[in-house]
Amino acid sequence: MIRKKVIFTLFFMLSRIGIFISTAKLQNSISLSRNIRTVSAIMSKFELPERFKGNEKSVWVEYIQLALKYKPLNLGQGFPDFYAPENVTKALAAAATSENPLLNQYTRGFGHPRLVNALAKLYSKLLQRDLDPNNEILVTAGAYEALYATLQGHTSPGDEWIIIEPFFDCYAPMVNTAGGIPRFIALKPTKTTGKVTSADWVFDRKEMESLFNEKTKGIIINTPHNPVGKVFTEDELQFIADLAKKWNVLVVSDEVYEWIVYEPYRHIRIATLPGMYERTITIGSAGKTFSVTGWKTGWAYGPENLLYNLKVVHQNAVYTCTTPIQEAVAVGFEEEIKKFGQPDCYFHSLAKELLPKREYMAKFLCDVGMTPVVPEGGYFMVANWTALADKVRLQEEEDANKDYRFTKWMTKNVGVQGIPPSAFYSDQHKHLGEDNVRYCFIKKDENLKKAADILLKWKSQQ
Amino acid sequence: MIRKKVIFTLFFMLSRIGIFISTAKLQNSISLSRNIRTVSAIMSKFELPERFKGNEKSVWVEYIQLALKYKPLNLGQGFPDFYAPENVTKALAAAATSENPLLNQYTRGFGHPRLVNALAKLYSKLLQRDLDPNNEILVTAGAYEALYATLQGHTSPGDEWIIIEPFFDCYAPMVNTAGGIPRFIALKPTKTTGKVTSADWVFDRKEMESLFNEKTKGIIINTPHNPVGKVFTEDELQFIADLAKKWNVLVVSDEVYEWIVYEPYRHIRIATLPGMYERTITIGSAGKTFSVTGWKTGWAYGPENLLYNLKVVHQNAVYTCTTPIQEAVAVGFEEEIKKFGQPDCYFHSLAKELLPKREYMAKFLCDVGMTPVVPEGGYFMVANWTALADKVRLQEEEDANKDYRFTKWMTKNVGVQGIPPSAFYSDQHKHLGEDNVRYCFIKKDENLKKAADILLKWKSQQ
Repeated sequence: MIRKKVIFTLFFMLSRIGIFISTAKLQNSISLSRNIRTVSAIMSKFELPERFKGNEKSVWVEYIQLALKYKPLNLGQGFPDFYAPENVTKALAAAATSENPLLNQYTRGFGHPRLVNALAKLYSKLLQRDLDPNNEILVTAGAYEALYATLQGHTSPGDEWIIIEPFFDCYAPMVNTAGGIPRFIALKPTKTTGKVTSADWVFDRKEMESLFNEKTKGIIINTPHNPVGKVFTEDELQFIADLAKKWNVLVVSDEVYEWIVYEPYRHIRIATLPGMYERTITIGSAGKTFSVTGWKTGWAYGPENLLYNLKVVHQNAVYTCTTPIQEAVAVGFEEEIKKFGQPDCYFHSLAKELLPKREYMAKFLCDVGMTPVVPEGGYFMVANWTALADKVRLQEEEDANKDYRFTKWMTKNVGVQGIPPSAFYSDQHKHLGEDNVRYCFIKKDENLKKAADILLKWKSQQ
Repeated sequence: MIRKKVIFTLFFMLSRIGIFISTAKLQNSISLSRNIRTVSAIMSKFELPERFKGNEKSVWVEYIQLALKYKPLNLGQGFPDFYAPENVTKALAAAATSENPLLNQYTRGFGHPRLVNALAKLYSKLLQRDLDPNNEILVTAGAYEALYATLQGHTSPGDEWIIIEPFFDCYAPMVNTAGGIPRFIALKPTKTTGKVTSADWVFDRKEMESLFNEKTKGIIINTPHNPVGKVFTEDELQFIADLAKKWNVLVVSDEVYEWIVYEPYRHIRIATLPGMYERTITIGSAGKTFSVTGWKTGWAYGPENLLYNLKVVHQNAVYTCTTPIQEAVAVGFEEEIKKFGQPDCYFHSLAKELLPKREYMAKFLCDVGMTPVVPEGGYFMVANWTALADKVRLQEEEDANKDYRFTKWMTKNVGVQGIPPSAFYSDQHKHLGEDNVRYCFIKKDENLKKAADILLKWKSQQ
């Protein structure tokens, strides 16, 4: 790992020297010794600013590249490979070719009026509180930008953020680059053999309590949880809420999988607990809600005073989001709000559609010898692969973490790609993720079957 | 101005106190004196971080709100009110409802492969240099995010950036929030009466030279220029390029209006000047290129080592852009590249279509008594309104700057909205913009005629 970093840094230094030496040659006016001095000054001048250093690596960039190269059956990234609901894709087509030419032009920076109205209507109902569409909702370039605006807008140097591991890997860099300090606490499985579900993954309450202090700015929770699939219980959320109130800290609640919860579990919004709306920023995603991850439209909602900081960041970084897509998402919400509570409402039907896929994946992972953690929500499955260790030539891969080696070797040699969960842990806790792999099951049945066939065939050949 | 700021700050302080006092009431466990102490601690805890302060104001937020309230004929924001080219809007409809379900899912974070390939093909031709689609191009959430990624990714605290006034108003906050220091130099008109064109607006070369020093990280240029419409000459660009090389600084070239240049002027890309590609990041926009500002898709291109910093910021803030829109923009480029050089190529036909609108607006602004600056490029017209000063009751408005008062009064009382150019100047130079108003002429002929009728009727009634 350290060696790779050094090589990487050297590579960039060399590429910079190369470019500027050739510039220097063109100028042809400086002596060699001055040149060397100048080159090193030039190099450092255009280096990455200090606050970004250590935050350059992305498991996604690396694993998408891997997928492009080896063309495995890809159970890595979390997106469906089947059709999105026709009403929303048709709504986008209609917006693009609408008789109203303004649907292809700039809209309101903090959210297209039709979309913030639809979101306010939905969440007012769910929170049993009147949300002001113009002041309590911000539309962003994906939930990702909502997280960014939240963490940038509420972090001053030295502020501490509590992050529950494993975590969606952008949380920590977003805190770091704003000068904040992530404090990590891991969900840990209470058992690792037999039938394991995501409910078996819990945080230690004493440890959680010990992380709160006067420097704590906030805590980030993610329910339903990626990658474990845990749906936080009311009791767990109340425990966190009480600490948040006691220490006067923010709660950022990443709820992008809010509609993907399997019976009999139910999603609880921490903002609905007593006294919590006032200190909670909740993040949602059209991409996850309507199975259109490529639409990159998300939002944050919460009290006006807290959202103000997000708006300043958003206005500085992106300013306004895509109009035709916001229009189409608004249409989607308006239609689903009408069907709310009915079985054909997409908010309810998607999880029902995914349930057999979850069961199918859990079974074939067991059959191949892994121990899956059956998720209560979301569309990922974490599985312990260590029983297969003697079938995998980990020594052929160079990464520091075993799960990186496992997933890379499997991609190259077996043809099924997963994501290494250690990417979702801090450096000091990466070992906690190494025995696992994350697979995504929001895939066509035929592709899940292909994955099962490949894995089972591979196992039988050992 | 200061009074408004104080009121604004008080308002936010009060809203925060309000919310947290009610929280405190709910908790019902702290004494009054402790409460007061706590409330003030709470307030400061969730205030905007220091680096954002002073960067909250946006002329757009304010003037869009004004337009929503008074419903004037809106010549403010820069977007067309007519149909975008059918081939790109149909391409978006086709992507949304494509047989390939992946066109609605996540694509490559640094740019959809089809789009970066199309961009590389176009700019390789224009720059006469082979651009690597994967390493020398980054697709962003609008040119706005490209500017943000550039300025965030290349600014360390204390770095100086030279900004030419008037400037697209986001440049300065983007530099400020990264800890950088903007150094301003104004374009000034060499004449203000008679027939004035944007070519009459120039920077003082001695003053420009004096701004470069060892702390200078870069200079931002914008050609064709918003709001003046200036198309920088080769001689002006070479002067800047020589200084950039002498002082080893970056050039950020905002060229979003690259295709909107009126005969006989021509757009020159500073990256094509000798030795300049190596230190230039050029910004472009699909919204401006294809008259779809609501699509929020832009890009930066430049050498790999300089783009690296942008990628780290992009990966941290937005990560990936909208897939169906990138697909549609790619289709648009592929088609226009085939027609390149022919009169029906949109890159050439748009400026031809806009030319009579420019002439029409210049004439009616003269007729009403203003002195317009006829632009060589872009679709904005800056006009000196001071000859009308005795017809406008500026004292009815409260803003510190006269152009704010003029544009607000005109919106409310005459029904035509423009943008106050002082928004595009630093605090110390706002007086340089006060005599002017910015109007946008990429509007339907009937709406330009309405604007003319309203203004001429108003004038005749005086």
